Amino acid sequence: MQKGHLLYEGKAKSLYATDEPNVIWMTYKDDATALNGARKTAFANKGRLNNQISTLLFHYLEKNGVQTHLLETLSETEQLVKKVDVIALEVVVRNVMAGSLAKKLGVAEGAVLAEPIVEFYYKDDALDDPFINEDHIRFLGLATLAEIAELKTVAHTINALLQERFKAANIELVDFKIELGRLADGSIVLADEISPDSCRLWDSETKQKLDKDVFRRDLGDLVSVYEEVLRRLTA
Amino acid sequence: MQKGHLLYEGKAKSLYATDEPNVIWMTYKDDATALNGARKTAFANKGRLNNQISTLLFHYLEKNGVQTHLLETLSETEQLVKKVDVIALEVVVRNVMAGSLAKKLGVAEGAVLAEPIVEFYYKDDALDDPFINEDHIRFLGLATLAEIAELKTVAHTINALLQERFKAANIELVDFKIELGRLADGSIVLADEISPDSCRLWDSETKQKLDKDVFRRDLGDLVSVYEEVLRRLTA
Ligand SMILES: Nc1ncnc2c1ncn2[C@@H]1O[C@H](COP(=O)(O)OP(=O)(O)O)[C@@H](O)[C@H]1O
Ligand SMILES: Nc1ncnc2c1ncn2[C@@H]1O[C@H](COP(=O)(O)OP(=O)(O)O)[C@@H](O)[C@H]1O
Ligand SMILES: [Mg+2]
Ligand SMILES: [Mg+2]
Repeated sequence: MQKGHLLYEGKAKSLYATDEPNVIWMTYKDDATALNGARKTAFANKGRLNNQISTLLFHYLEKNGVQTHLLETLSETEQLVKKVDVIALEVVVRNVMAGSLAKKLGVAEGAVLAEPIVEFYYKDDALDDPFINEDHIRFLGLATLAEIAELKTVAHTINALLQERFKAANIELVDFKIELGRLADGSIVLADEISPDSCRLWDSETKQKLDKDVFRRDLGDLVSVYEEVLRRLTA
Repeated sequence: MQKGHLLYEGKAKSLYATDEPNVIWMTYKDDATALNGARKTAFANKGRLNNQISTLLFHYLEKNGVQTHLLETLSETEQLVKKVDVIALEVVVRNVMAGSLAKKLGVAEGAVLAEPIVEFYYKDDALDDPFINEDHIRFLGLATLAEIAELKTVAHTINALLQERFKAANIELVDFKIELGRLADGSIVLADEISPDSCRLWDSETKQKLDKDVFRRDLGDLVSVYEEVLRRLTA
């Protein structure tokens, strides 16, 4: 497989063409961004750690019946993935009250939810990724009613699997964001990444933050907590 | 029926007890507020006009099978209504793109929607009535899954009826907000009011605004457009 021209330079990853039209060469960058890119810092090794953590979690999900875009992890920072038509939604699943939702509903961070909460955000940087509902998704033509139901089912399935996986690593999966996309035949697969950039992870006992909130809230050394997550997941 | 003590002083109405525990004496005030009450002006006759318009629309809805709280209109600004346990949701139905949604999704005002959009806002002044989804509603304990389905069905039914009623008055029903509540037996009825305070109404041809946006956007004399709405509905 040959690495071709740059297709897209994102905030945390870059996408390159390959000699195979349905395959993308994805490289993980060291940049961390917050506030929709307004704040940006490079952290040596972050790209490698996210690639390793995401690879590990995608393999685990595949093994448990979740279809993903991952084809092969090429190097410390590179993956080959199936090219998908990304659905312009950030699908968020929450198990514990935290972040923007705690603020919006005026409740304290940390309460364990009786049922996971699923939310959809319209992936559009210019609009600041607004929170939307299912009628908005249909208005925007992002997904059909049946696809929305499938997105929610897949999100719940992934959540249950990840919760278990992280729990075994003594980590509480507070919430996470996934992106999904359509293959040529229309089937929906998990795309993008799952890493401490896209999850809220707390130490199960101490509730220490092990994710990008360390950067967002200036709580210490980002890379060492990402290393700790990888260490625990591979222990 | 005797008017008792003040139960609640709202932004646009006041609620009084009566000698009947299940009945509330509701009076319409002349105040118009915007920005969640931060801006407030009194307009002579607005209370009367809203009471008359809301009475007319609630009778029309009742006649067409929608259960409402309205018992009797007592005077120009007073109604007797069934006391309900108000569900702390503002249920918004949209037929035409406008206002906050147009802004949020980055689309122009005025596009007619292929399907009406229903939205839920958590009625909580201190939180600024945040936009929420069905999982949030269940987390907050505001309504069960079955009740949420019922709220949406009732909202669509009311929308179809109101669209027809306004169309006959040469008015386009762009969007509106309703509140619903539970009677003692748990059944859900339409409560609060439906008036140019709670609807976006445009002249069908000229698209002239005939609602509270005249106040919000400083577009002219509020009372004369409310009078025009009443005139058209009774023509
Ligand atoms: N399998 C895939 N095929 C095509 N695009 C993908 C795939 N997986 C992820 N993407 C997209 O690639 C980009 C990844 O780079 P990232 O730095 O995360 O971008 P962004 O700044 O948009 O979040 C995202 O826009 C994501 O939607
Ligand atoms: N039938 C009813 N029983 C009890 N409360 C009601 C009923 N209908 C409306 N309400 C409530 O009465 C208040 C009406 O006054 P309003 O000025 O609109 O208040 P607000 O400033 O809260 O919007 C609202 O809080 C509304 O939820
Ligand atoms: Mg991204
Ligand atoms: Mg009100």
